[in-house]
Amino acid sequence: MSIYRRRPADEETDCNFSFVVQARRDEHYDVVYRPNLFAGNDPALADAMGREQGTLVVTTPTVDRLYSDALRRYLAACERSGDVSLTVLTCSESQKGMEQVLAVCERAAAAGLARRSRIVSFGGGVLMDVCGLAATLFRRGVPLVRVPTTLIGMIDAGIGVKNGINFGGKKSQLGSFTAPDACIIDPSFLSTLPRRHLRCGVAESLKIALVGSAELFDLLEVHGVDLLESSFREPADVVRRVIHLSVARMLDELDLNLFERPERFERSYARRADFDRTFSPYIEEASRHTVLHGEAVVADMVLSAQISSSLGLLDDVSLQRLLELVRRLEFPLDWSSMDPAAMYAALGSVVKHRDGKLNLVLPTGLGNSTYLYELADLSPRLIDEAIGHLARRTGSSGLRAMYD
Amino acid sequence: MSIYRRRPADEETDCNFSFVVQARRDEHYDVVYRPNLFAGNDPALADAMGREQGTLVVTTPTVDRLYSDALRRYLAACERSGDVSLTVLTCSESQKGMEQVLAVCERAAAAGLARRSRIVSFGGGVLMDVCGLAATLFRRGVPLVRVPTTLIGMIDAGIGVKNGINFGGKKSQLGSFTAPDACIIDPSFLSTLPRRHLRCGVAESLKIALVGSAELFDLLEVHGVDLLESSFREPADVVRRVIHLSVARMLDELDLNLFERPERFERSYARRADFDRTFSPYIEEASRHTVLHGEAVVADMVLSAQISSSLGLLDDVSLQRLLELVRRLEFPLDWSSMDPAAMYAALGSVVKHRDGKLNLVLPTGLGNSTYLYELADLSPRLIDEAIGHLARRTGSSGLRAMYD
Repeated sequence: MSIYRRRPADEETDCNFSFVVQARRDEHYDVVYRPNLFAGNDPALADAMGREQGTLVVTTPTVDRLYSDALRRYLAACERSGDVSLTVLTCSESQKGMEQVLAVCERAAAAGLARRSRIVSFGGGVLMDVCGLAATLFRRGVPLVRVPTTLIGMIDAGIGVKNGINFGGKKSQLGSFTAPDACIIDPSFLSTLPRRHLRCGVAESLKIALVGSAELFDLLEVHGVDLLESSFREPADVVRRVIHLSVARMLDELDLNLFERPERFERSYARRADFDRTFSPYIEEASRHTVLHGEAVVADMVLSAQISSSLGLLDDVSLQRLLELVRRLEFPLDWSSMDPAAMYAALGSVVKHRDGKLNLVLPTGLGNSTYLYELADLSPRLIDEAIGHLARRTGSSGLRAMYD
Repeated sequence: MSIYRRRPADEETDCNFSFVVQARRDEHYDVVYRPNLFAGNDPALADAMGREQGTLVVTTPTVDRLYSDALRRYLAACERSGDVSLTVLTCSESQKGMEQVLAVCERAAAAGLARRSRIVSFGGGVLMDVCGLAATLFRRGVPLVRVPTTLIGMIDAGIGVKNGINFGGKKSQLGSFTAPDACIIDPSFLSTLPRRHLRCGVAESLKIALVGSAELFDLLEVHGVDLLESSFREPADVVRRVIHLSVARMLDELDLNLFERPERFERSYARRADFDRTFSPYIEEASRHTVLHGEAVVADMVLSAQISSSLGLLDDVSLQRLLELVRRLEFPLDWSSMDPAAMYAALGSVVKHRDGKLNLVLPTGLGNSTYLYELADLSPRLIDEAIGHLARRTGSSGLRAMYD
């Protein structure tokens, strides 16, 4: 960084002075894929935990029940039992608040963590949010290692720099942009993930495929059902390739503006990774949050594709392939429950969050997309017609929830 | 930023993959000196408040009582009454916690602040800490403007990037490194600052002078008493120069490692700006916090100078000039109350915080200094003798508190 003294002739006088402080923060982190961490005693995690001044692993009750014995054996095998503490935190999407963050900070203090000690979050997306913010705040920031146990964590929430908690009744009202030290992806944890949550992870992968990777779409089309049914155990090379492509495309999207600095958004806050956040807030709300985010993502994606088709931007074969894949993957879609007028009205707050722009992502093929920037270009009639089309094409409630 | 794929031959296999995400965050902020902001309707503050999506000014009860009328007149003159909200927060050093931070976040939400809205902290160091962390967290970070009303705020706490709050009974256990958008220094606010607090600000200036600026030392030697007695009203050119040099030297120190990244500390956490933090924690603790930080800073500085003199690193004329200036500025020093053995023992936690090093700053002249890095090189006897010398030289309790 550097500091220089500024003295513009039109501002400065004998009475005033000013400095401009300029600083650069270089951040880097690893996203690594290591199948069978525990079974293989892979040193990747032990190494990422660091050797300095203790480590705190935070996990959830479910992950603790399923994996803490394996973790303890692993730590013993890596000769890290002595300096790694393990703590279990109860948290959920609805109670993801500052109280949970402070609970992690308390345990970090009790474990004697120092400035370079690491916090490891071993669990799903909610835990990663809570631990991410705790690691941001504790001692003004300690390194964070993420070991996601959900597919969404592995290909989305775990590999970026955002964290967020609820506050004052609003989702992600507080949070920070904090780069982790490492994210370690081990698909073997998916073998115990409930099918419905695994399907939501596939939704994120399908989203990335539709807007950015024809190869990924093809892989999901051919192997998606098998992947779901085997809980991502096999085929191993397809598991690896699907996660690789999903991570790579997501990092490409984040690469444009990792820290979401306003001055770097050429077109306001437009991002293809936000594909799923135009209609999905309404869909989740309208279902009274009985629909999971991943399920709303798929509905958002299908609706966007139908609108794109109505506008002549997406060919019918591609739309049909998407609808067929969504059907085979058994995503619940209930178009009859959606109110097009209310959905259109809900776009208001999306536009507010995107600085006055709609930035609707429209697929233009399987692996390509464009934007519709202005809300004014999207009429209520277009949404109404698209929902009508979809209700007819897929059966009005033909794909109702099939939760398992 | 950029992302590249890493494939070191010795680590990678057909089963694994890894990415390294690299990012750069460019930060910059202004530190500007604008005497008579309100009286002169200087647009500097109104400009720094931004024009987007509202502004929240947070102040303390005392500052509100003294300056909110002037602020309101100023906002009206700058035609900003409509979009700037004002809120008063009660906070103190002992209750500087997450509760206060969340109170600011609540008011920011109530004021409808958006992602580019600014929070302005208008008050002393405690308020700057609380608002700094609130601005870090609210909507994952909104721009922060600081208008310090204390001398410490103007030349130290307000111009850096650190904030911290108490947690679990520990000072600054939580916090962050967050660059502000701007810090606006107006010395006219010092006219209402209690003398004892103003003197503490002078202590910070004297600290910077002793280790880094002979010119600043000379200015304080000649004008220090007048500055204190006039509450920094005059001489105006000296006020400006003293603050300019204090800010410039402090920014030079911060420049070495603004965000305190461990990898950038060549010699552990050694910083001349930490001059005042070797003995002062013990001195504050031993006084049961009846001694203010700035007063402990002066005791720390004088003790370090005496040790430096005992080691033959500081000439006696310089030491004498320092002691004389400290006497004339009426800093309370009570050497008889200090237990050299307990003081030595307390260095243990200082060393722990500095990653195993002592990093004692030793003045080698008026405006120069060196380090004593290892605790092993500082014997209890050296501290004992230094305190004995000082008790004889300055009178054992000859400079007891003279608070006004």
